[in-house]
Amino acid sequence: MKKIVKIGLIGWGTVGGGLVKILKTNAHLIEERLGGKLEIKAIADKDIVSPRSIEIDKKLLTTDVESLLHDPEIDIIVELIGGKEPARTYLLEAIKEGKHIVTANKALLAECGEIFKAAGKRGVNIGFEGSVGGGMPIIKVLKEGLVANRMEAILGIINGTANYILSRMTSEDKDFQEVLAEAKRLGYAESDPAMDVEGTDSAHKLAILASLAFGTRVKLNDIYVEGIKEITQADIRYAKEVGYSIKLLSIAKENQGRIEARVHPTLLPQEHLLASVNGVFNACFLTGDAVGNILVYGQGAGEMAAGSAVAADLVDLARNILSGTPHRVPVLTYPLGAAKMKPMKETLCRYYLRFSVLDRPGVLGSISNLLGKKDIGIASVIQKERREEDIVPIVIMTHEAKEENIRIALQKIDQLAVVKAKTMLIRVED
Amino acid sequence: MKKIVKIGLIGWGTVGGGLVKILKTNAHLIEERLGGKLEIKAIADKDIVSPRSIEIDKKLLTTDVESLLHDPEIDIIVELIGGKEPARTYLLEAIKEGKHIVTANKALLAECGEIFKAAGKRGVNIGFEGSVGGGMPIIKVLKEGLVANRMEAILGIINGTANYILSRMTSEDKDFQEVLAEAKRLGYAESDPAMDVEGTDSAHKLAILASLAFGTRVKLNDIYVEGIKEITQADIRYAKEVGYSIKLLSIAKENQGRIEARVHPTLLPQEHLLASVNGVFNACFLTGDAVGNILVYGQGAGEMAAGSAVAADLVDLARNILSGTPHRVPVLTYPLGAAKMKPMKETLCRYYLRFSVLDRPGVLGSISNLLGKKDIGIASVIQKERREEDIVPIVIMTHEAKEENIRIALQKIDQLAVVKAKTMLIRVED
Repeated sequence: MKKIVKIGLIGWGTVGGGLVKILKTNAHLIEERLGGKLEIKAIADKDIVSPRSIEIDKKLLTTDVESLLHDPEIDIIVELIGGKEPARTYLLEAIKEGKHIVTANKALLAECGEIFKAAGKRGVNIGFEGSVGGGMPIIKVLKEGLVANRMEAILGIINGTANYILSRMTSEDKDFQEVLAEAKRLGYAESDPAMDVEGTDSAHKLAILASLAFGTRVKLNDIYVEGIKEITQADIRYAKEVGYSIKLLSIAKENQGRIEARVHPTLLPQEHLLASVNGVFNACFLTGDAVGNILVYGQGAGEMAAGSAVAADLVDLARNILSGTPHRVPVLTYPLGAAKMKPMKETLCRYYLRFSVLDRPGVLGSISNLLGKKDIGIASVIQKERREEDIVPIVIMTHEAKEENIRIALQKIDQLAVVKAKTMLIRVED
Repeated sequence: MKKIVKIGLIGWGTVGGGLVKILKTNAHLIEERLGGKLEIKAIADKDIVSPRSIEIDKKLLTTDVESLLHDPEIDIIVELIGGKEPARTYLLEAIKEGKHIVTANKALLAECGEIFKAAGKRGVNIGFEGSVGGGMPIIKVLKEGLVANRMEAILGIINGTANYILSRMTSEDKDFQEVLAEAKRLGYAESDPAMDVEGTDSAHKLAILASLAFGTRVKLNDIYVEGIKEITQADIRYAKEVGYSIKLLSIAKENQGRIEARVHPTLLPQEHLLASVNGVFNACFLTGDAVGNILVYGQGAGEMAAGSAVAADLVDLARNILSGTPHRVPVLTYPLGAAKMKPMKETLCRYYLRFSVLDRPGVLGSISNLLGKKDIGIASVIQKERREEDIVPIVIMTHEAKEENIRIALQKIDQLAVVKAKTMLIRVED
């Protein structure tokens, strides 16, 4: 019986380094749990010269990816270079060669259904625990732990950078730009933070989670996305005043056969467990028809946390390989057809609206009339006396309303002469 | 290829009913995800006459457990009757017959290593996700999701009844007995709540989790256990005053090859995620060397939540059976030898001490002298002016100290003439 599973690693960067450290440090323990050995046979990267934080046998390193893909001894290809190309080409080639693959590449998985398709056709398996939520075993929880549930909802804080920025804006009274600059300095935000603060990274991950949860392929384009750049200190303070925290939430729900999927800043009640998830941590709050509510929380990034997820995938695939059944859990537990999505304009939720208006009599009346015409009820209002400025904020929390109606109403309201800036809208999740 | 996995269910009670509901309601979905069918072939119980909340084909019901154990068509025996006997005998017999087993019986698994031993020897698998934490997939997370980690610590709120009582004592200023009576009335506590409030149920579950986490058999007798019956409103208030909540925590840690395992009321900082876990909910806070901190949270009990865990085990075993590899994940990923435990008296932690003393000069001095003699430093003191009573409380939070030293010091302090009642000791986890 085969006792060694050989691995080819593409990408000798942060997560790759973490993975190698874990496989080295915990080699004995993993062997005991697996009943076999995981061996890194080769590591390919464009740059194999720059020093890394871990020592390895130089003979393992190569710049020739092809030599890994075509090495008949290699059972599993681990792809940790990220981005769509050349990762896509490498993985498709590895699959063609009959190798199982492990990847943490959320962009690729969210946008290229063909990877799953090719793997299914060729009969190889894909591990992708590392693609969402760093060290949290959220893919396994959804795919196996909650396998007997019809999933109803996912609420996720799945971008550590955005959560770090909002957490510090909340705890320290600082503005978005100021916190972002600090996050960059501390290495919590990349030099180009667009993917994180604009919500794209969250949407990639939500596409993966929602597809698994609802058993249908939710594509990136199916997801409504709004980032956190426009959130101001004023919004954070008003939210706090009414008992809410602002989080960048990734939300997916299924209702009567239709799926809604959206990423946007969200007012979340302060007593909600997700409201206590601060800093770079990630968490997913899942609702299943049998299990009720489940929360999984952990470090969303970092070489060791992400390495832990990739290593768990390797053990999983190795268990299959060693027992001779690579297909034990199907690559996909859902068909690849298009999901039946609920258009964003049909979404129902409560809204936080911050109007910037001239301090004149009758302004609140005009606004509430226009809201009322589109069936939007007002749950609470904050309007404070101001002495120095002429432009004052009015904050309204609405009852549940339809997105389409809110948009129409705001368009009209923003045209009023007394309204001096675009109204800030933040959705509420109770 | 085999496409149907047949199940014999022993125990037609709450969880059994939940399981059958889930397998019925989500049959199509489970079949799609499994690539095969789960079929309940027979259900055995002493009482098959009393009405249940779910309709099933009467022909499935029998009082003859043996007929299930010896039915060659049955692949998996699910045991949901709880308690040591006759569950133990049934499971050993099922194993002898070569059947895989699924059980939610924490007492049995914690106390009878022979079940695991027999299963290992006979080459059958045991699913026991339902034994800890209701619907939370905590066994899977430990055994598979964090498989590449050397686990360092487990902090668990794993008894819903105790957590419900402490939560209500905290939020409503009520005493233990009052809340317990209400909990019984509402069905959150059993008529004999000893297992829950005295910590035994938590210890059973901790034995299972610690054994998995540290890869050695932690037995019930290895665990120090203290219940919540002596916690008073005064303790909850003083804890709050210094920024802590009181929770019944199940704690296991590994340090330099030795394991400490203990269940006791614990002061937990209010900002700790576990401090927000209220009511009947359960949560486990795990620390691994690679993954860092992970929290898993969910309903600790209830027919549907526990049913979800049992159903997930069934799918897991069925995946193995259908792919012809029941041994893919070893029954035990650790040897059955005795764990190397750290004796309770060597435990290091901070302590909350509430002394009941006469309001006389020099009392605080005498107490702190006796603490000082055993190397116990004082971190903070609460002593308030009292006018009416002669006996006053002094609350001391210590620095980290050795359990043995605390016990010796308290023994001496409690013999002082000015000390009028046994000193209350609650351990602190920062």
